[in-house]
Amino acid sequence: MDNLSKGYDHIAGQKTTRIESISDGVFAVAMTLLVLDIKVPVGKIVETESDLIYVLLPMLPRLLIYLMSFMTLGIFWMGHTTQFGFIHKSDRNLNWISLFFLMMVCLLPFTTALLSEYTGFKIAIWAYWGNILLCGLTLLAHWRYAVKRNFVTLPYEEKQAISKAMHRRIVIAQLLYFIGALLSFISIQMSIGFIILVQLNYALSLVTRRFKM
Amino acid sequence: MDNLSKGYDHIAGQKTTRIESISDGVFAVAMTLLVLDIKVPVGKIVETESDLIYVLLPMLPRLLIYLMSFMTLGIFWMGHTTQFGFIHKSDRNLNWISLFFLMMVCLLPFTTALLSEYTGFKIAIWAYWGNILLCGLTLLAHWRYAVKRNFVTLPYEEKQAISKAMHRRIVIAQLLYFIGALLSFISIQMSIGFIILVQLNYALSLVTRRFKM
Amino acid sequence: MDNLSKGYDHIAGQKTTRIESISDGVFAVAMTLLVLDIKVPVGKIVETESDLIYVLLPMLPRLLIYLMSFMTLGIFWMGHTTQFGFIHKSDRNLNWISLFFLMMVCLLPFTTALLSEYTGFKIAIWAYWGNILLCGLTLLAHWRYAVKRNFVTLPYEEKQAISKAMHRRIVIAQLLYFIGALLSFISIQMSIGFIILVQLNYALSLVTRRFKM
Amino acid sequence: MDNLSKGYDHIAGQKTTRIESISDGVFAVAMTLLVLDIKVPVGKIVETESDLIYVLLPMLPRLLIYLMSFMTLGIFWMGHTTQFGFIHKSDRNLNWISLFFLMMVCLLPFTTALLSEYTGFKIAIWAYWGNILLCGLTLLAHWRYAVKRNFVTLPYEEKQAISKAMHRRIVIAQLLYFIGALLSFISIQMSIGFIILVQLNYALSLVTRRFKM
Repeated sequence: MDNLSKGYDHIAGQKTTRIESISDGVFAVAMTLLVLDIKVPVGKIVETESDLIYVLLPMLPRLLIYLMSFMTLGIFWMGHTTQFGFIHKSDRNLNWISLFFLMMVCLLPFTTALLSEYTGFKIAIWAYWGNILLCGLTLLAHWRYAVKRNFVTLPYEEKQAISKAMHRRIVIAQLLYFIGALLSFISIQMSIGFIILVQLNYALSLVTRRFKM
Repeated sequence: MDNLSKGYDHIAGQKTTRIESISDGVFAVAMTLLVLDIKVPVGKIVETESDLIYVLLPMLPRLLIYLMSFMTLGIFWMGHTTQFGFIHKSDRNLNWISLFFLMMVCLLPFTTALLSEYTGFKIAIWAYWGNILLCGLTLLAHWRYAVKRNFVTLPYEEKQAISKAMHRRIVIAQLLYFIGALLSFISIQMSIGFIILVQLNYALSLVTRRFKM
Repeated sequence: MDNLSKGYDHIAGQKTTRIESISDGVFAVAMTLLVLDIKVPVGKIVETESDLIYVLLPMLPRLLIYLMSFMTLGIFWMGHTTQFGFIHKSDRNLNWISLFFLMMVCLLPFTTALLSEYTGFKIAIWAYWGNILLCGLTLLAHWRYAVKRNFVTLPYEEKQAISKAMHRRIVIAQLLYFIGALLSFISIQMSIGFIILVQLNYALSLVTRRFKM
Repeated sequence: MDNLSKGYDHIAGQKTTRIESISDGVFAVAMTLLVLDIKVPVGKIVETESDLIYVLLPMLPRLLIYLMSFMTLGIFWMGHTTQFGFIHKSDRNLNWISLFFLMMVCLLPFTTALLSEYTGFKIAIWAYWGNILLCGLTLLAHWRYAVKRNFVTLPYEEKQAISKAMHRRIVIAQLLYFIGALLSFISIQMSIGFIILVQLNYALSLVTRRFKM
């Protein structure tokens, strides 16, 4: 295959528009599908307003999971998008790394649902954590490859600074998630709570800190 | 986290293309998923044309809800798109506000279905109204933030005029929806009817007024 | 509402990129959802290769419907896309006409499924035809409005020629579909066959005529 | 129809952005829908961590199929995207060839599911192979048509070289898949294993060979 594929390899995927476009598509579909888990309860006997409240209350956890999953997807979409703010070229390999990243991202709704269904179990937490880890690793690989192949066209110093920030962010986030997963040996509630706090921080803290209308 | 995230924060999401693209994707999926609620009735005994009419008639309310939900999504898509006609830059925070807006938008099919399933109940109306309110609030926050950070690059006067029109539209629309929700204390039918009229006005009135083929 | 909305109306939706993007999204989702109707048969006793053939054969009509629906969506996507090859500006109204067009397009999988479930019934044919008619009418309205508002920026003569071709195509196609629907009074099989031929002509004839590899 | 459609035909679909956009959309939706097959098991009695492992283990084949299907879709998306790196114009026919390609691509999740449900059967393998063949053929037709109509604007020599690489890749890949399908007459396990290896090669080998972080 080697000689053959080199020619094709050389020419594949120079534009970044297509991989950006399919990534946005995958994230958009994944985000929207999340809501399919929130179904209007039917076939219940609802006669008064309080009957309806009683029927709707058990849906609150699902709503919370929806918000959390949406946020998790948002965090990774943001990471991917931020990279492409600096990556001006692409090739076959970089596109494939993006596709593997998307492959992992698409599993997030599943591992989130697993965690919500089997909240008390360590395995569910570690599956969720493993999924986030794989998203982080492919995202890191994506950036490192782009830098190595000079697809990031910036003055040297700026590139170094940005690359450092990119690395630091992913590594620290993943460390925090790992600590969260480790906490499951002490208390599963604490573990989940910690992971939720980490996610909230990435999605919200900057907004609340800087965004004063 | 503060010092660390500043670097990353500074560099995240300057282009507006990606957030526009994922928004269009989310709206497109949400709109198309609406139709999944309209299922061809199967397993009925249909022997004559009038049998078929008899089987199809009960689907009319679902069709109506489909049209209403599509319209509601269209109204908010239009609002978001209109803003990006003027917003030429973006940052991490603005992207997150868009994501929170999309989070609320994706819930619209659910609250609409809730309203259609439990039409006679105040809680269903208020849930629907609350959802529309959250869409409106995040949309307003989106605009205010963009203006504050100078992402709207227009001559001062024009910017003021547009910003005013933007505010007025969202605030008045939300007031009308609020009146609609309040009407539920008098009559639930009147309440729903009023809300539908408000939506029809936003989607249709301009078309019928100006559009003479 | 009039004075108020004028300001907003004036500023809404000048770019065509967003409406093109959401249209592609809606068509893409609608096309892909079609395949969900083709489900792998489970729970059957399959021991030999001929058992499997026996289980798969009843799926052929569904496959045919899939191909037909995809083609119908393709025809309307092509029509919409062709218009935007000439339309260089947009406004709030044009965007809404596109959204109403998409609303009708999204119903096509439903009316197609209806026709395939109740093949022998006139009402199913007329529902299908009505849907195609509404798609055609909104598409025509879309073009007429764009021309009227000077969003088609071409030399006068060329614009006239293109506009004529656009009209002719939609009107003739709709006439053919109408003839197809009328045929249902003679024979329902003939009616459906004729409609399928019309669609095949629009999707295939040009390809087979000009495309000689 | 001939004289009539010529006018319309001439003007349809010159931009490549729309067909690229809808293709990305279709691939994105198809990829994301794959994950819907992986459902969290509910209604099982799970009391210990090992109970949960016991419940989750039977899901591993589904996970594998998910990864394989995603990869298959990725391979064809890459092929289509690579072509559009060189195709700078489009017309009605080229767009229709793309749509027929997408029609075949959207069936891949179905034939993959068929293969996974009826793994021991030759017919399932040949259906899967037939689907991949149709994807390959339409992709090849797409490239040949674009070259023939001079939509690939490159210096003569470069165009020849790229066209050769494009052909070689598709033909060799299809030959390998055909060999894989033929192997089903010896051993079905060997047949499936070989096809998986071919796909892994196209998706991974280049990455592992060149990508050293």
